[in-house]
Amino acid sequence: MKVIARIRTDFKEKFGIPRQSGIVAEAVGRIVFEPEYRVPEALRGIDGYSHLWLIWGFSLAEREDWSPTVRPPRLGGNKRMGVFATRSPFRPNPVGLSSVRLLGIEDTAEGKTLIVGGVDLLDGTPIYDIKPYLAFTDSHPEATGGFSDGVRDYKLSVHIPEELKGLLGSDLATVVALLEQDPRPSYKEDGEREYGMVFRDMEIFFTVLDGTLTVTGIKRK
Amino acid sequence: MKVIARIRTDFKEKFGIPRQSGIVAEAVGRIVFEPEYRVPEALRGIDGYSHLWLIWGFSLAEREDWSPTVRPPRLGGNKRMGVFATRSPFRPNPVGLSSVRLLGIEDTAEGKTLIVGGVDLLDGTPIYDIKPYLAFTDSHPEATGGFSDGVRDYKLSVHIPEELKGLLGSDLATVVALLEQDPRPSYKEDGEREYGMVFRDMEIFFTVLDGTLTVTGIKRK
Repeated sequence: MKVIARIRTDFKEKFGIPRQSGIVAEAVGRIVFEPEYRVPEALRGIDGYSHLWLIWGFSLAEREDWSPTVRPPRLGGNKRMGVFATRSPFRPNPVGLSSVRLLGIEDTAEGKTLIVGGVDLLDGTPIYDIKPYLAFTDSHPEATGGFSDGVRDYKLSVHIPEELKGLLGSDLATVVALLEQDPRPSYKEDGEREYGMVFRDMEIFFTVLDGTLTVTGIKRK
Repeated sequence: MKVIARIRTDFKEKFGIPRQSGIVAEAVGRIVFEPEYRVPEALRGIDGYSHLWLIWGFSLAEREDWSPTVRPPRLGGNKRMGVFATRSPFRPNPVGLSSVRLLGIEDTAEGKTLIVGGVDLLDGTPIYDIKPYLAFTDSHPEATGGFSDGVRDYKLSVHIPEELKGLLGSDLATVVALLEQDPRPSYKEDGEREYGMVFRDMEIFFTVLDGTLTVTGIKRK
């Protein structure tokens, strides 16, 4: 598989990345094509689409061998599911699939770049393909699906003390959206424990107790 | 990319294959895993899902080089679009994306196989990945998209003489659904021309005039 582009996002570490695309609409990325694919004609007509598919590589999840089962974090991390019944990165071919919103196309020194919203990709992730999202063939609102059916509505209540809110500035809404989706590995429940999530140039510290996440500190790097 | 499975379908030739997945619900395929991936545990929980994603290889579309633009048949075949604004098989990485309906799981001499509906894949197509379809992240009924928006409702009216209908037997509904979606390369409009579509062990001949497709003959192979 040839790398056609790389995406730049504010996620510098795996911890805290939304677990699927579209969950955090505020999470924005920029797709920069590799020099060989920096051809404006290849994007002709793409501005007519509201959504795109990205097929990409789980760059941090490459393993020598594959395991037939995985433990999805949303099941508490202690129940094994077949790898083909999950979106786990640890699969025979470590390829991810994300639908993103096309927010704009910008001319830059690196050619035309695509600005996309709702990303769930680590900064620098290699992109193998970009396809238009076609609602008539790709959208199945009636699709049902095992343990993931209840996921959409799961959210933490986020509390950020006033003195810390000021430090977030225009990132406030995005950070709240990221924290609401609960970045913790689900098998842990320890109200005393402090977690740190890296976002852009910040490390955001928090604790979680009884469904409420409280931000305890913010450090600029 | 490792081939984890191959799909068996009734499409032995490229001509006549539905242009996207789900368009012809009656088109059924059987996913047979390669021996290394024939592990029942890898499918644990997959029966909870109504739809699956297949990531697969365009086995007939491999080319040495890529072209930045392609001519989609639905635009009449004479208008060039950027390859990333289309689902054309001729792309830098010849990888396809199809959502299919999971109809059943069968125990066979070749291990557990998945029966899926709405396929748009040639018989023998290599499968690289199978993922569950998650409506909360994959379904965007509101997505808009350039020239493809009008495609859903485009259908030919299909006329099959009574004496030929009998030859189709239980395949009648499937064949009608395949013909309705207009297998012709769109840039041709020649009411005299006879086309032949291969489906399973039959070759089905037809002409098209003014939006009506007439079956002119059926030959068992």
